[in-house]
Amino acid sequence: MATIQEIADRLGISKGTVSKALNGASDISETLQKTVIETAVEMGYHKLRRPGGLRKLCVLIANMEYTEPHHFGHELILGFRQMAEPAGYTVDIVPATDALQASVSYDAFMLQHDYLGAFILGFSLSDPWMEHFPTSRTPAVLYDNYVSSNPCMASVGIDNREGMELAVSHLKRLGHTRIGYLSHALDSHIMQVRREAFFQSMRRQGLFADESLTGSSHYIAHCMEKYLPRLLYEQQVTAIICSHDQIANAAMIQCQQMDFRIPEDVSIVGFDDLPICAYTSPPLTTIRQNRLLLGKSGYYALESLLNGIPIGTLLLHAELVVRNSTNQVSYE
Amino acid sequence: MATIQEIADRLGISKGTVSKALNGASDISETLQKTVIETAVEMGYHKLRRPGGLRKLCVLIANMEYTEPHHFGHELILGFRQMAEPAGYTVDIVPATDALQASVSYDAFMLQHDYLGAFILGFSLSDPWMEHFPTSRTPAVLYDNYVSSNPCMASVGIDNREGMELAVSHLKRLGHTRIGYLSHALDSHIMQVRREAFFQSMRRQGLFADESLTGSSHYIAHCMEKYLPRLLYEQQVTAIICSHDQIANAAMIQCQQMDFRIPEDVSIVGFDDLPICAYTSPPLTTIRQNRLLLGKSGYYALESLLNGIPIGTLLLHAELVVRNSTNQVSYE
Repeated sequence: MATIQEIADRLGISKGTVSKALNGASDISETLQKTVIETAVEMGYHKLRRPGGLRKLCVLIANMEYTEPHHFGHELILGFRQMAEPAGYTVDIVPATDALQASVSYDAFMLQHDYLGAFILGFSLSDPWMEHFPTSRTPAVLYDNYVSSNPCMASVGIDNREGMELAVSHLKRLGHTRIGYLSHALDSHIMQVRREAFFQSMRRQGLFADESLTGSSHYIAHCMEKYLPRLLYEQQVTAIICSHDQIANAAMIQCQQMDFRIPEDVSIVGFDDLPICAYTSPPLTTIRQNRLLLGKSGYYALESLLNGIPIGTLLLHAELVVRNSTNQVSYE
Repeated sequence: MATIQEIADRLGISKGTVSKALNGASDISETLQKTVIETAVEMGYHKLRRPGGLRKLCVLIANMEYTEPHHFGHELILGFRQMAEPAGYTVDIVPATDALQASVSYDAFMLQHDYLGAFILGFSLSDPWMEHFPTSRTPAVLYDNYVSSNPCMASVGIDNREGMELAVSHLKRLGHTRIGYLSHALDSHIMQVRREAFFQSMRRQGLFADESLTGSSHYIAHCMEKYLPRLLYEQQVTAIICSHDQIANAAMIQCQQMDFRIPEDVSIVGFDDLPICAYTSPPLTTIRQNRLLLGKSGYYALESLLNGIPIGTLLLHAELVVRNSTNQVSYE
């Protein structure tokens, strides 16, 4: 690990100036501070953990709501804090805005704020810091994203392959063989994983599946107007699995508007088990992600990384929640 | 959870007799004890954890040596104990012999001996208890095996897909495009995973791979006599990845006996990084499994299961260790 002296030598400035810059002293210009921090990160400098000092973690969150109890991120953060705070950590919640990600590198941000590690929620593949993670040296646990071959980075989530297998087996047991798949746009890691898992599960269960049985779009309306009618009229599916609950809910409403009854004519399965699922019409069969336990697992994984155990992947078992949107196939 | 009274009612015997049988009293016949325990397990009875009482875990081990420091299982067990014992658990090491597995079900065995959970090492797909795990109710963490959809069962290992990706990229960077694969017999979960990962990595790296480039057998000698010459003479591979280090070591020796130089004519990559790898001739490039950390992870996963966090999969990052058995491809 580089010392403050080595950073000073590299930049041709005094040790005191480096130290001030690293501690955010106000008499150091912003430009110089930035140069010092980025040099420190590049040279592998870490502030030592001070015994008895403040031990800080952060939750970096993008593209995900979390302030209200029914928001997706709320329980993820709650579970994380329920483990981290009793263990003596302070946890800051930091929105990873585009502006923040553009202004500083991930490692420099973490060093600047004394964070020992991060729990990272909601990042899409196009978030700028995603490019920093493969070579970052600051421990982070990513929810529903995966970074290969960096011992500082772990991934947590539910086992989406297992979840998809549960959904397909459930429908197959009910007699369905023509099963379609509707998805959000494929610019997120998890949407790619779920779609691939759909094809794998269908094959494993001996059912036919190709592109013609699937549709994906950034816009739910686009999925409903373009792909749903194609699945129903051209492909004559009797069941549809959706990449997440909002699409499933929209599909149920749209089917009913086209005079298909749920579940008598078409069975629908969602993914995530959002609180809304118990109150849709009909209540939605879905794959549960227990977000409180995922938050706790995020802490477990981060603590392991901080203790030098290079966890790469931690997946929770998926769970099928059967409600009323699925039924025996009807042949009429 | 069933009570002792309910078990007694089901069997038409007294509560006292059930209690004696569950606690292994000597005045209860072996047959009756077996009946009581299996009924208790079937009805979902668990002994309550007594506060202040003995908290016992076990390591169940089959098909794997562990008594000497250089044995594969030694550090797995050591890592597990290094975490479990300071946390207040007693850990027993139990060889899961065929006789044991045939005599009693997994759940009954655990109940009978007051074990709260198990770390399970070395099981092959044909071990009898593998059939009990999908429906078992006693928490267990399996090293290098996977049980789907049972919230009491977790799997730990290194990320073999990542490891294979590291091996294939390393060889590709050295200019190799004709790469063969030699494997132990495919009756173990992990041999299946590694072989599938080989094909996936080759495809992802844009390299050709089909069955003709692979060979597998229970017997290393068979691999060496039948498949190795085919890879070298017919398929003209310039590099071979092996499913584990012993095969890699045998392949190096056999190649040299056939006048192929390692690494000038053929590059060889192993898997596992056994202690022997530093002393083979030449020292072997391989994918490291850090067995001490895997043992610690096994405890982390088991503790999570015992705390109601249904971990399904925990994978450690794989690591490429470059020694002298791999080299730039030579075109002559």
